[in-house]
Amino acid sequence: MIKTARAAVYDAPNEPFVIREFPVRDVKDDEVLVKVTMSTICRSDIHSYKGHRPNPCPGILGHEIIGIIEQLGSSITLDLRGDTLQCGDRITWTEFFHSGESYYTDVHDMPQKAEGVRKYGHDLADEDPHFLGGFAEYCYIQPGTGILKLPDGISDEEATPLNCGVATMISVIEASKVSAGDTVVIQGLGLLGLYGCAIARFRGAKHVIGLDAVPDRLVMARKFGADHTIDISGLTAEQQIAAVREICSPDGADVAIEVCGVAAAVPIGIKMLRVGGRYTIAGLVNPNANMTLDGNELLRRWITLRGIHNYHPRHLVEALDFVMASRDQFPFGEIVDSKFSLEQLNEAFQRAGDNSVLRAAIVP
Amino acid sequence: MIKTARAAVYDAPNEPFVIREFPVRDVKDDEVLVKVTMSTICRSDIHSYKGHRPNPCPGILGHEIIGIIEQLGSSITLDLRGDTLQCGDRITWTEFFHSGESYYTDVHDMPQKAEGVRKYGHDLADEDPHFLGGFAEYCYIQPGTGILKLPDGISDEEATPLNCGVATMISVIEASKVSAGDTVVIQGLGLLGLYGCAIARFRGAKHVIGLDAVPDRLVMARKFGADHTIDISGLTAEQQIAAVREICSPDGADVAIEVCGVAAAVPIGIKMLRVGGRYTIAGLVNPNANMTLDGNELLRRWITLRGIHNYHPRHLVEALDFVMASRDQFPFGEIVDSKFSLEQLNEAFQRAGDNSVLRAAIVP
Amino acid sequence: MIKTARAAVYDAPNEPFVIREFPVRDVKDDEVLVKVTMSTICRSDIHSYKGHRPNPCPGILGHEIIGIIEQLGSSITLDLRGDTLQCGDRITWTEFFHSGESYYTDVHDMPQKAEGVRKYGHDLADEDPHFLGGFAEYCYIQPGTGILKLPDGISDEEATPLNCGVATMISVIEASKVSAGDTVVIQGLGLLGLYGCAIARFRGAKHVIGLDAVPDRLVMARKFGADHTIDISGLTAEQQIAAVREICSPDGADVAIEVCGVAAAVPIGIKMLRVGGRYTIAGLVNPNANMTLDGNELLRRWITLRGIHNYHPRHLVEALDFVMASRDQFPFGEIVDSKFSLEQLNEAFQRAGDNSVLRAAIVP
Amino acid sequence: MIKTARAAVYDAPNEPFVIREFPVRDVKDDEVLVKVTMSTICRSDIHSYKGHRPNPCPGILGHEIIGIIEQLGSSITLDLRGDTLQCGDRITWTEFFHSGESYYTDVHDMPQKAEGVRKYGHDLADEDPHFLGGFAEYCYIQPGTGILKLPDGISDEEATPLNCGVATMISVIEASKVSAGDTVVIQGLGLLGLYGCAIARFRGAKHVIGLDAVPDRLVMARKFGADHTIDISGLTAEQQIAAVREICSPDGADVAIEVCGVAAAVPIGIKMLRVGGRYTIAGLVNPNANMTLDGNELLRRWITLRGIHNYHPRHLVEALDFVMASRDQFPFGEIVDSKFSLEQLNEAFQRAGDNSVLRAAIVP
Repeated sequence: MIKTARAAVYDAPNEPFVIREFPVRDVKDDEVLVKVTMSTICRSDIHSYKGHRPNPCPGILGHEIIGIIEQLGSSITLDLRGDTLQCGDRITWTEFFHSGESYYTDVHDMPQKAEGVRKYGHDLADEDPHFLGGFAEYCYIQPGTGILKLPDGISDEEATPLNCGVATMISVIEASKVSAGDTVVIQGLGLLGLYGCAIARFRGAKHVIGLDAVPDRLVMARKFGADHTIDISGLTAEQQIAAVREICSPDGADVAIEVCGVAAAVPIGIKMLRVGGRYTIAGLVNPNANMTLDGNELLRRWITLRGIHNYHPRHLVEALDFVMASRDQFPFGEIVDSKFSLEQLNEAFQRAGDNSVLRAAIVP
Repeated sequence: MIKTARAAVYDAPNEPFVIREFPVRDVKDDEVLVKVTMSTICRSDIHSYKGHRPNPCPGILGHEIIGIIEQLGSSITLDLRGDTLQCGDRITWTEFFHSGESYYTDVHDMPQKAEGVRKYGHDLADEDPHFLGGFAEYCYIQPGTGILKLPDGISDEEATPLNCGVATMISVIEASKVSAGDTVVIQGLGLLGLYGCAIARFRGAKHVIGLDAVPDRLVMARKFGADHTIDISGLTAEQQIAAVREICSPDGADVAIEVCGVAAAVPIGIKMLRVGGRYTIAGLVNPNANMTLDGNELLRRWITLRGIHNYHPRHLVEALDFVMASRDQFPFGEIVDSKFSLEQLNEAFQRAGDNSVLRAAIVP
Repeated sequence: MIKTARAAVYDAPNEPFVIREFPVRDVKDDEVLVKVTMSTICRSDIHSYKGHRPNPCPGILGHEIIGIIEQLGSSITLDLRGDTLQCGDRITWTEFFHSGESYYTDVHDMPQKAEGVRKYGHDLADEDPHFLGGFAEYCYIQPGTGILKLPDGISDEEATPLNCGVATMISVIEASKVSAGDTVVIQGLGLLGLYGCAIARFRGAKHVIGLDAVPDRLVMARKFGADHTIDISGLTAEQQIAAVREICSPDGADVAIEVCGVAAAVPIGIKMLRVGGRYTIAGLVNPNANMTLDGNELLRRWITLRGIHNYHPRHLVEALDFVMASRDQFPFGEIVDSKFSLEQLNEAFQRAGDNSVLRAAIVP
Repeated sequence: MIKTARAAVYDAPNEPFVIREFPVRDVKDDEVLVKVTMSTICRSDIHSYKGHRPNPCPGILGHEIIGIIEQLGSSITLDLRGDTLQCGDRITWTEFFHSGESYYTDVHDMPQKAEGVRKYGHDLADEDPHFLGGFAEYCYIQPGTGILKLPDGISDEEATPLNCGVATMISVIEASKVSAGDTVVIQGLGLLGLYGCAIARFRGAKHVIGLDAVPDRLVMARKFGADHTIDISGLTAEQQIAAVREICSPDGADVAIEVCGVAAAVPIGIKMLRVGGRYTIAGLVNPNANMTLDGNELLRRWITLRGIHNYHPRHLVEALDFVMASRDQFPFGEIVDSKFSLEQLNEAFQRAGDNSVLRAAIVP
């Protein structure tokens, strides 16, 4: 077996990534060693890189990862779906892991919120097992990770975002109780918004209405299931609300979802809803996203407002099922629109950071 | 049959109520004529009286009403529970009524939010059938009202608030998904808060924590099922949160409910919740109840925030079942702590308005 | 206005239908007079005609009906969705109607099970308003019926079964909690089975497995969304179960639905389910459909078994949304594969009865 | 530390238990060593003892166990509720354990049904760690067990059945969706039936109707919350149904629960339900519990029938909360009505087997 492998190491915020080698050892009984075939740069990687949030240095960033099983711990035999795992299988896995007993895991079935939960791409590279992030040749999957075998039919480009963007939006759409015949508003048509449009459409939404201020995104949203798109650049809040309400007879949308990262969008979106409508906050991932709401309006109109972050392992299973069932309908492959080698990670971060690419992939 | 009956008429905001007589006619096929035995003054009656919200004049206020059936329309045979109705039965009924087809009624099962829904105590007294409010000798129950027979065992004092405060809080506690073992925070210990404490306790809450700044209300809350009460006078938001969290091991309350009418209480209450906790706004009945929330906190902590107003007819049935099952446990009769004749309505409003009584009853 | 119109009257079981004329009068305030454009023969019409179940004679059979509004009662202004109704609109409506208060309607939101609920096609033709069935030139829509405007894009053939087969299967799939990624077994591929396949597919089922013993039906099921079909002719129960389980990794299907009308299919279908699976009985519409189940198996495997009959008005709205959203995907028009005039009703019943047509339409 | 401890060993079906000594070693990092303070004999222990179902020999039976922590593995720090664990704490724990990834655990949140789940009282005593059953001085709690600290206020008699009978009935009542105001029928008033009555009452059931043929049990059921009891000895099925329906106006019970172990009770109980009623099978724990149901009746009456077995760890938390909140209301201590030493286990099994005691406790 090989003795070392390469990783692009994050030494300090805004500093260039540096290629280093770390030892590769045999797996423990409850680990899996994966040869990374693709990883993608998530917006939260960029936040980490820019120092907007603390991440240990030196580290290996990246949590949207897929790869091939190279070594399988003896106690790992089945994937989340109960299918047998073996060396050579191509897999995805939950971006977080947790093991042991926990109030949130065992009582509330929220392993993603367990005390002590950890996330790939957030550890020191200096310590064993070194490889716990996506921008490297290898990754050690830790106990308490949900693993899922990938079918042959899915491309790497379609599969890599499964464990972050797709699974999160499966979680969001479920929490928003989108059902067939519903009218769904998506505020923000970035990666999460595109997946949101597609999942809502796939679940039988009557109307999927996408809002953004970037014309290219509106075009893309139509490919991902939006039957109405509204360019909000230059529109007042009242105009946005009126534009949506005109589509939603007789009294507004059933569901609205914030994935634009702008807190001020929330009160606008709430006014687009019918009595009894559901609003979900899914994009306000940065602290202090303050917004002013009228509690009387929430009360009189029976509004349900939920915040959703991350997902449950079962959502990863549903994410894969969704992409496999609808890949003829939606051009998932187009989302990953650029590829870079490990050595090109600095360029990839620059391009992802200035939005000149939609989703940058690293092929180590 | 008698030809006329008395009502205390509301001629203009802040003017004294005047006793007038109106004709009493035979019922139509789909009406019920009730001889009022008791009505109580709701806080919203006081808002109407003071002109804080529009109400037609001259009118008969009052929607918390019970009475004896004097005439029964030929098409009315059963109550909400399917029990036979007949003259002489003592009954309560939904404070609202609506008939005909409706998007909200027929599709979303929210008759309380149907286009064209009307409420007792909100009509002109000059027009037939004149008697549509509580502060009068009679009331005509209109088509589309949910009627419920009262058992002998319940006193008028226990029964009169059923169709407003009790049924609303049944609706609120249901929407808050309070289940056995939950820890429930009630912000505000007025009438709604007391019923909220009792219903949460009745449904098996592990802890019911009542918050208010009026010491007498804290004492009363303990009689209504609160096992912890916190006097928030002089406490900062952080102190309130800390006091609640100390009780709620390991990570905050499952549910918090706003019934204090103060929008600023909402962000404080949200910080009392565990990840995945539910917050319900039930007391912000006045417009422009603005509050500032941190959307990121809602997201990271999977908070569900709901506004609830009014109730479904089935909640009235559950309200009666609740009071009948727990009247040995909670002193519901003490809530209605004063009685007045129709002629004393001005005094009753004054006493209710300055909070020198808890719930004023009119016995015409 | 015309004074009389034609109907094909059912005088006695198994006797030929006879064309008779009945008076057409102006509508009451709460009625709608519809000029029938198409009605279809449901299996239950055949049961009535053959005398397998009591139906008043002389009567006008038929409850799957659409038509054009000719007169609109003054109190009817909006459809179920809140859209404005006017003369000339083409509409569908719930096959049942009920008005007034009711325990099941007002407390349990099951208007379809209200005491005194009535169904189109089940009244005496001799009495006013005479026209209450589908096989006639006119139909009077009664108070308590849910009305829904049809968009131009839907053909009569696609629209006529909406208020029976489609809405019922929307109700069944909802009760079966079919969600994206589920594996769904449909036992029986007649009209209900085909709609069941299509709705399950539309809601994102991972696998839709159709079972029948008629080869033509298996072919049709593949057009309606089944990705696996199993010809059960000649298969033992064990073989059927094994064939389904081979598809459903790792431990059986999430959902199975009986729409074959054979009670013995139920225990077989239950054995196809995973632990926690849901089974819905939707086709056993005839009395004494006895079956033997092993209660221990239900217990150990956490099986949920539900019976579903008929539907809620909101399901009719969803039925229309479903057909409009998926009519490019599924050939709904092919289901209504034959047309007859009112005078040809005898032939139509013969053809429907011997299954030489799939769904016979009457165009009066 | 001591080197050996005593256990009452089950060598073969129907043979006397024999006291043997086994080594007691230090715990591994993920184990807990408990000094047993009480264990009780469950009906399933009797089935195992009589050879009605396979259980490895020689073994230590008993899964209803509580005890004091003597050694705590270094990785075990918190209980299910998030409270800190330490030596000397008195605890209860789930009767089953499972560790590692699993389709049922991770996707469907049913750890109790995970592939490879194990149960206390079902292992060979010859192998390390020897002590995995209740009828011994010690028990080693294995990884994947949900542990819960017991408050001082609860007696051993109240606490020992928590992890079997009480938690199971919490699971059953939840699955039956018993809510305030419901009418609940309990068929069978043994241990599960008594807990079922009490939990239904605690959750606010309007009527709790207990059925049994043993007069003493009817008396006991009234102490545990049944407000109606029906002695079914000598009653036909029709008479039982009529007796229940007389209490349940207007159209039958909301919920019925089988805990009598007799399959023939199921079709009788179903006929006691209203349209839309829920029936739960919870007592048919033995194979081949065949029963004949009318599928048409299930369909027409929208009946939901569920089988429930065992429970989720969160139900153990709720079980303890329930007993703590209602121990002044229900005489839980009376259920454990006899105590035996380890040496008296043979006598205890005899008394439990012939029903001359309600619940026999072993105090080693």
